[in-house]
Amino acid sequence: MPKSEETRSLIVTTAMRLFTENGYDRTTMRAIATEAGVSVGNAYYYFSSKEQLIQGFYDEIARLHLDAARALLAEEPRFAERLKAVLLCWLELAEPYHRFGTQFFVNAADPESPLSPFSEESSAARDASIELMREVVEGSDVKLDPELRAQLPELLWLFQMGVVLFWVHDRSAGEKRSRMLVERSVPLLARLAALSRLRVFRPVSREIVDLIQDLARRE
Amino acid sequence: MPKSEETRSLIVTTAMRLFTENGYDRTTMRAIATEAGVSVGNAYYYFSSKEQLIQGFYDEIARLHLDAARALLAEEPRFAERLKAVLLCWLELAEPYHRFGTQFFVNAADPESPLSPFSEESSAARDASIELMREVVEGSDVKLDPELRAQLPELLWLFQMGVVLFWVHDRSAGEKRSRMLVERSVPLLARLAALSRLRVFRPVSREIVDLIQDLARRE
Repeated sequence: MPKSEETRSLIVTTAMRLFTENGYDRTTMRAIATEAGVSVGNAYYYFSSKEQLIQGFYDEIARLHLDAARALLAEEPRFAERLKAVLLCWLELAEPYHRFGTQFFVNAADPESPLSPFSEESSAARDASIELMREVVEGSDVKLDPELRAQLPELLWLFQMGVVLFWVHDRSAGEKRSRMLVERSVPLLARLAALSRLRVFRPVSREIVDLIQDLARRE
Repeated sequence: MPKSEETRSLIVTTAMRLFTENGYDRTTMRAIATEAGVSVGNAYYYFSSKEQLIQGFYDEIARLHLDAARALLAEEPRFAERLKAVLLCWLELAEPYHRFGTQFFVNAADPESPLSPFSEESSAARDASIELMREVVEGSDVKLDPELRAQLPELLWLFQMGVVLFWVHDRSAGEKRSRMLVERSVPLLARLAALSRLRVFRPVSREIVDLIQDLARRE
């Protein structure tokens, strides 16, 4: 990792720790810089505002997730196991930030916010996450309606956004309900995907996919 | 409607109008009472706080929705048409409050808030809405897996909560994307419900229902 990337990452993780400990509003850029051992000017060079730090945090979590998830995919051919591993891995990485997460992921649910996963500003992180879902599908043994296969990576990413939204509102100890959601819904999704090859189910399955894509599309 | 109910309803609708015009934080109980033509003491007799007014607003919308929806159901036997009418009717009734809605329905998404549709405080409104969905199913021509039939009213209510959540975040003109969601998802739900009778689909359908119910259950 280049030195500038290291500094950037250090500033983000320090900021997230301070936000979690003291609250977002009570944490200043000066405090973040001091705690990270960089000058205030340097901190502002990387992040022009606290909101940008949150974008930086998303990018950081997404980067850590890609690395960790790819390692898990290397030896596993079963589709449901691959998808489950990728989603549980995200929950594990995000866990330390859950308390704070309920504050800022809720803002991200506003489709006009640059923090929304559907925004222009989030397109790099979004593309990388959809690419990861493509690897989940392509490296697996799953048998699918060919039309569904092309659309599945984006649909799985939308499903991941749904899991994140559920996790944000999850107040169970250790977010165990979010893990239950993943562990129980993934085998069902895999079975539904397999059913997509049946003639009786195929038209419904294609219309569901069209509808989800139309709803997720920005104006 | 008894006089006390009328006063209650008048205070709620006045409050909602003022919240929408001037913002929730800038609207005092005194201003609401003056505008509604009742004494401040009388307003506090019905609603001990502004938050209680929001609960009152939910109840008011739910009551109006029950009346309007039942009138629509009277002459329509087709399941998909019945469900669509009930959901579109809610969107129409809630439309004037959309701008304000994005502020307070988001709070309601917190499962620990008394404003959550899953809370103890919301149980009367919730039961009435599930009962309406039971009428949608029972008065219709839909053919179903018998096990699904018993659970369908609660599932349809959960679906309605999903529509509300989508509507809260809907920034399209006149919330037309929310109407598209209802118009296109309802026929698909009806077809999926019909597929529940097929042997190949039934086990998946039952597991999906179990999972949704486990996730919606409070701890």
